[in-house]
Amino acid sequence: VSMATAPVAALVAVGNELLYGQTVDTNAAWIGRSLAALGVELRRKFTVADDAAEIRTAVRRAMEDTDLVLVSGGLGPTRDDLTKEAVAGLLGRELHLDDALLTALAERFRARGYGRLPAPNRTQAEVPNGAIVLRNEHGTAPGLGLEADSCLIVLLPGVPRELRGIFEGELTDLLRTRFAQQMRPTHHRVIHTTGVAESRLAELVEPLLPEDMGPVGLAFLPDLKGVDLRLTAKGVGDEEAAQWLDRIERALEPAVGKWRFEAESGDVVESLQEALLSKGMTVATAESCTGGLVAKRITDRSGSSEVFVGGVVAYSNLVKVAELGVSADDIEEHGAVSEPVARQMAVGVKERLGASAGIGVTGIAGPGGGSPEKPVGTVWIAIAVGDAVDARLINLPGDRNAVRERAAQTVLGWLYRRIATEDSGA
Amino acid sequence: VSMATAPVAALVAVGNELLYGQTVDTNAAWIGRSLAALGVELRRKFTVADDAAEIRTAVRRAMEDTDLVLVSGGLGPTRDDLTKEAVAGLLGRELHLDDALLTALAERFRARGYGRLPAPNRTQAEVPNGAIVLRNEHGTAPGLGLEADSCLIVLLPGVPRELRGIFEGELTDLLRTRFAQQMRPTHHRVIHTTGVAESRLAELVEPLLPEDMGPVGLAFLPDLKGVDLRLTAKGVGDEEAAQWLDRIERALEPAVGKWRFEAESGDVVESLQEALLSKGMTVATAESCTGGLVAKRITDRSGSSEVFVGGVVAYSNLVKVAELGVSADDIEEHGAVSEPVARQMAVGVKERLGASAGIGVTGIAGPGGGSPEKPVGTVWIAIAVGDAVDARLINLPGDRNAVRERAAQTVLGWLYRRIATEDSGA
Repeated sequence: VSMATAPVAALVAVGNELLYGQTVDTNAAWIGRSLAALGVELRRKFTVADDAAEIRTAVRRAMEDTDLVLVSGGLGPTRDDLTKEAVAGLLGRELHLDDALLTALAERFRARGYGRLPAPNRTQAEVPNGAIVLRNEHGTAPGLGLEADSCLIVLLPGVPRELRGIFEGELTDLLRTRFAQQMRPTHHRVIHTTGVAESRLAELVEPLLPEDMGPVGLAFLPDLKGVDLRLTAKGVGDEEAAQWLDRIERALEPAVGKWRFEAESGDVVESLQEALLSKGMTVATAESCTGGLVAKRITDRSGSSEVFVGGVVAYSNLVKVAELGVSADDIEEHGAVSEPVARQMAVGVKERLGASAGIGVTGIAGPGGGSPEKPVGTVWIAIAVGDAVDARLINLPGDRNAVRERAAQTVLGWLYRRIATEDSGA
Repeated sequence: VSMATAPVAALVAVGNELLYGQTVDTNAAWIGRSLAALGVELRRKFTVADDAAEIRTAVRRAMEDTDLVLVSGGLGPTRDDLTKEAVAGLLGRELHLDDALLTALAERFRARGYGRLPAPNRTQAEVPNGAIVLRNEHGTAPGLGLEADSCLIVLLPGVPRELRGIFEGELTDLLRTRFAQQMRPTHHRVIHTTGVAESRLAELVEPLLPEDMGPVGLAFLPDLKGVDLRLTAKGVGDEEAAQWLDRIERALEPAVGKWRFEAESGDVVESLQEALLSKGMTVATAESCTGGLVAKRITDRSGSSEVFVGGVVAYSNLVKVAELGVSADDIEEHGAVSEPVARQMAVGVKERLGASAGIGVTGIAGPGGGSPEKPVGTVWIAIAVGDAVDARLINLPGDRNAVRERAAQTVLGWLYRRIATEDSGA
């Protein structure tokens, strides 16, 4: 099957804060995902400072061999926002005041209780001659599309919510029109796992990979929450891609099955939520070292109120005793980070809050509080389901944040597998 | 004062996942910060796919006009890890097996209970001829330093903990030795604010800026937690930089004072923690829509056990009544998202958990649950301090995550200002 090449894009992210490191560039990942989903290949990314010369050089380089250049950041109302002027200069376009934009801006400020448009925002109604204006429903800087040298250059604000709103709105329509004949979605399949190390998973997976992978590439993506295996099929049609992905996914199943969970979001909480819903169960959380993170993870998802009743963050021992019914003697004898305390937390919160399952987490997240017997990273987790309660000791590497994230993920993954296999007795 | 130019660096981040967007590149921000702190200027960043030709091209371009090129990612044990081979190829270096590395790797796996070194990891002991090996205490891929064309090229694993460990360890020593005469720290000063919009702040700040900003640049960095103003002084010595930064900071004080908090981490929880400590106070949290996020924010910081006793995540109304003593009649009459419920949550958790201050948050985070009277983003927050209790209605823009983050930040900032000004009666 021979096909046209997919449109190729480059991204230029503008902002001192991205180079000096005050800000993590979350836009890049989102844009990459969104372009891939549309069938546009993001091939390169440049990050440059708030400097007109640097912006011009990067945009000029980004235009080489590409069909689309997205430029993010530097469209704000303040004096360090230089993108619009720099790109207009590079392309030899004058700026003019757009009356419709000015009216909309003034209206926006009125609606928010400002008497008048702040002076710095007025420059945001200036657009380069010939630009397509892309509506920004979440902020004051519109997106701007410019055609030059058979390349479409699009300027977007750096604020993630604004960038995403414009992209999903008028920019998607523009790209669909502009690249209609060329768009070629890349096909991804992601296998989520949690509870197994990357190198162990690689060792299990490698021998199962077919000699001929066809158009499919494989990547291991580890983070604090587990390891994703991403299969990517490029340059083939939908059906052929699906066949290849199916074949390779089947080949890997014996290696990944034990740790796998299926959730569109990649979040094991989605799987847990579905498992609880399908069994008509609810959960409550009792947390010490994770300090609310497990409850936060569960409630990050909308619809969580159907399966989550609530939780207790029992940071002090007094709260463990008074609010969860943990035995003060057991705390005295075994310590707050111990098997009996974790078990009593899980059972206590389940009973007190009237849920059908309870989670208990108590551990040493660090950096202080460790001892030779119980070093930083020592965590007891427990789950109570019906009349049964189980506890596990886990030793987690990493700093405070890593220990907390890993502890939360481990107990959520454990409860998910427990609930999902409840009927089969596994 | 005339000085040598600071060393200039470029970063090449390798990984399909960074372009396809499965992973957010948190390394880049960290590296930018760390280089700036050392006095190295990160001027550009390139992001490329797991493709040997793309890696070679980017590294070659990155070497132009720079003293240092850092390459992150692609050093793992799996078949999509191509960085080492690609860069060795570009520089014309053969790979050889490093016996010391191989022994250390085998030992590491033995210590973790593996009988033998997994085959894929063996390739991680191969190093390009002439490379400086930089120890990785957190993983299996060492850092590698290579000199070519008066540029130092350093390969680092992409896993953040490993990259950071190597950077802070042997790489910092190497950079200090290599660039001893040239290092020129950039001077930053960051003014943190919370509770005021960027455009409003800009309007207040602009008229106060001196005509002559000297070597100082100003940037506004807004996020869900507030707006940071970053002042940057470049190209001058320590003393001169400090004088300029002092002068401009003083000029801005009348505009920012009301919303400012001082915390090295930029986290208002640091300020809250210090204020509570200095007054000998403790806090407890009662959360509905934030679902544990406020408690999580507080316990993100080590040492939080001195000021935080615990919290209740009262997601269901039953838990609000049973665990916090909220009046079921008030829930019936005013709804769960209402002033009396927020007040009773703050007071209830303070009393039940024996803290000197209580936080209550109840709202509609969305996407569901909104109504014309109480749309998504409607949040009641309350703080109880001693015998006093205050409540506020806030209307927050954004999606579920934004509403939750903003609600948590607003109540934490409010309690901080309340506690910090407690004595003065403000």
